[in-house]
This record gives sequence, structure tokens and C-alpha cells, in this order.
Amino acid sequence: MPDLPFLPFCALLGSLGLGCVAFVSAWCRYWRGGFAWDGSARMFNWHPLLMVTGMVVLYGAAALVYRLPAAWRGPKLPWKMLHGMLALTAFILAVLGLVAVFSFHNASGTPNMYSLHSWLGLATVLLFSCQWVAGFGAFLLPYAPIWLRALYKPVHVFFGSTILMLSMASCVSGINEKLFFSLKNGTASVPYKLLPPEAVFANVLGLLIILFGVLVLCALANPSWKHPEADSLDTHQVPASLSG
Amino acid sequence: MPDLPFLPFCALLGSLGLGCVAFVSAWCRYWRGGFAWDGSARMFNWHPLLMVTGMVVLYGAAALVYRLPAAWRGPKLPWKMLHGMLALTAFILAVLGLVAVFSFHNASGTPNMYSLHSWLGLATVLLFSCQWVAGFGAFLLPYAPIWLRALYKPVHVFFGSTILMLSMASCVSGINEKLFFSLKNGTASVPYKLLPPEAVFANVLGLLIILFGVLVLCALANPSWKHPEADSLDTHQVPASLSG
Repeated sequence: MPDLPFLPFCALLGSLGLGCVAFVSAWCRYWRGGFAWDGSARMFNWHPLLMVTGMVVLYGAAALVYRLPAAWRGPKLPWKMLHGMLALTAFILAVLGLVAVFSFHNASGTPNMYSLHSWLGLATVLLFSCQWVAGFGAFLLPYAPIWLRALYKPVHVFFGSTILMLSMASCVSGINEKLFFSLKNGTASVPYKLLPPEAVFANVLGLLIILFGVLVLCALANPSWKHPEADSLDTHQVPASLSG
Repeated sequence: MPDLPFLPFCALLGSLGLGCVAFVSAWCRYWRGGFAWDGSARMFNWHPLLMVTGMVVLYGAAALVYRLPAAWRGPKLPWKMLHGMLALTAFILAVLGLVAVFSFHNASGTPNMYSLHSWLGLATVLLFSCQWVAGFGAFLLPYAPIWLRALYKPVHVFFGSTILMLSMASCVSGINEKLFFSLKNGTASVPYKLLPPEAVFANVLGLLIILFGVLVLCALANPSWKHPEADSLDTHQVPASLSG
């Protein structure tokens, strides 16, 4: 990979992530009636906002914690905790996002879990929950033996990227599905196939999500941004305040 | 990663890839009226079949060529040519798949290129065309200097995985979209939301595509399956028959 400095790249990623959140909020607020927590279509709107914020943007931030040059120095535990906390926040937002869509479906008599989008999305969140629990057990609790950490670490890293990729696929299929629902022939003033401004805006949101995710994966793959000792055996680490 | 033997894993991947092609063929043949090249809905059916076969299964096979232990021995040029030929075949199938959907849209008066699926799908095929041309120029033509090959190789490898990931997202959003079109409330005997057998079958196809893609990415990421000299500088190679 070309040798770019990490922090400016990180700033670009931050702006892009905020752009994704701003776009999905603007879409739901301006074209879809805004937000409420009452079982209506306005409750559904929390679903795309929470999933994009949690499963893409915060998840991406959590994945990149170990690439920060500051994380290479001093005790590792605070960075592990930051990684775990960001991932946990992402997970909580995702669960709230699922509550939003299930409540809307139940209130409107729509069956749950029939579309491919819903199957893939739920599988992604379930995989993420396994990843979080296994990561917490292996890297944050002090009981896991070193050989188990060493064995599990590449699996955790691989599934870290895979879950982000599945989140991107879930978001794209979800935005596509929502636009077909909302801009149906005969009900919308301008149907999806005639590309009204809402359709262009939400399509661009989908591409922004893809761009953000691909750039996160690119940052994770860049060998010059990896901790020089990232592949060394992981040891039980104690915060400086306790070990010192 | 756990140390699994590559060839049995490859056989599993081969079966899964054939399974994807068989599933998409069966879906189009049994529930969507089969195949024709006449601008009708039966012409559209070539689109999912050619895209899944080209952009997922053949593309995955092309990506894995350098992981075959046989590719580690002897001259590298025949393996590069096999990689390039498989990728070119995948690309040709993808172009035919695009011709199928554009012809169907044009014949039925449906606008082209409005859905997020179509934007992402076309962007993926365009990126693939750039990847193929750049790969051909850098690694198969004898003119590229070694420093350029060394600089471009990790970029080619990264975009190799990225394009597969984008193909998976395009396939999932496309299958989801097609099911909403075909199993619409009021026109289908059983709508999508009541999960008729076709919906279950095509949803499973979507998950099979994701599973295949993730396993290909897993095989590519596994360090014990990489050529020991994969990171060494790439040299201009001449076939044994010419150099010998």
C-alpha cells in the first residue's frame, strides 16, 4: 500500500462516518417524517439510523483503535477496554435498531424476518454478539491462557472485518428495500424508477456507507499501520496503575 | 487461523460454488419461467445466473489460483495466465449479465440504473474492469518495471478482496429486490412477507453466496496457505519453453 500518514486518513474516515450518520438522519427526517418511539413508521426510522451508526460507523471506529499510534505505547489494557466499549456501544445501538423495526412490524401487523435483508442483518448482529462475548472472554478477562489468545486472535481479526462487510451488505440491501417500499409505483408522487431527489440521496448514502467500510478495511489491511508487535503472543496485561 | 489442509477446503468451496450456480439456475427455471434471449422476463433471468456465476463463483476461483500448492512450484507465468483467464471469463459473463438486464429493461420500457443495487453492481463491474486491465498491464505484459509491480501488487490484492465483497453485497441486494418485485402483494399467489417456498429458496441462495464469499476471503487471509515468497518482489517471468 502507498505510505500515507494514518491520522489524516483517520480524519477523512471520521468525516465520512459523520457524513453517513448525517445522511441517514436527513433522509429519515426530511423525507420519511422524522423519529418517534411509538410503533409508527416514525419508529421504523430509528432502524436505519441506529444500524448505520452502530454496525458501520461506531463498529469501524472500534476496529481501528489498535491502529492509533498512541495505542502502541504504554499499557495495552486501556486500549482493549476502549475497543471493547466502542464495540459494546455499537452492539447496543444495533439491538435498539432491531427493537425499532420489530416494534413497527408488530404494531402494523407486518410479519418479521421474511426478507433476505432481515435474515442477513440478524445473522450479522448474532455473529457480532458471539464475537464480542468471545473477545471479552479471551482478551479482557484474565483467565484465558496465552495459547488460547494466540489461537483465537487471528480468528477474531478475520471475523472483525467479515462482520463489517456483512453490515455493509445488510445496509445496502435494507436501503434498497426501503426505497422500493416508500417510492412504490402508484403511491409515491414520483416512483423510485424515475429517480426522485429522495432516491438519489439515499442511493448516495448507500455508496457512502460502502466507501466508509472499504476505507476502514483498507486501513486495517495496510501493513505499515499495524502495531509492529501485533503478531506477537498476547500476554495477560495489567493496567499500569495496578502493576506499578 | 487453525491449520487446515487447503485441498479439502478447496473441494468444499467448489461444491459450495456449484451449489450457488445450481440454486440460482433452479430458482430462475422453476419459479421464474426459465431462460431465453428475447428481451422478455425470461431474458432477465440470465442476469442473476451470469452475475452469480461470473462475479462470485468464477471470480472466487480466479482469486484462489495462487493458493494451490502446485502454483508454488516451477514457472509462475502459466498460473498468472490461468488467473487472468478465469478473471476474464468472469468479466465476460458479468458483461453478458448486464446486457441481459439492460435488454429486458429496454424491451419493457423500464428505466435503467435507478436502484442502489444497480449503482453498486455497475460500480463493482467497472472496478473489476480497471482491476483486470491494471493487473494485465502490470503482471502479464513484460514492460512494467519491478518497482511498479511491487508497488501495485498489494493494491491489486486488496481490491481483489474488495471487489468480491462488493459483488456479494450486489447479489444480496439484487435477490432481495427481485423477490419484492416478483412476490408483490396482490399479484403473487403468496406474497414475499408470507415466505412462500420460492422466498425461502432464494433467501437461502443469498446466504449461500455470502458463505461462499466469506470462505474465499478466509482462504485468501489464511497465512499458512500463502505462497512463502508471495511478498517477495515480482520479477519479469518468461515461460519455461521460451527461457529454456
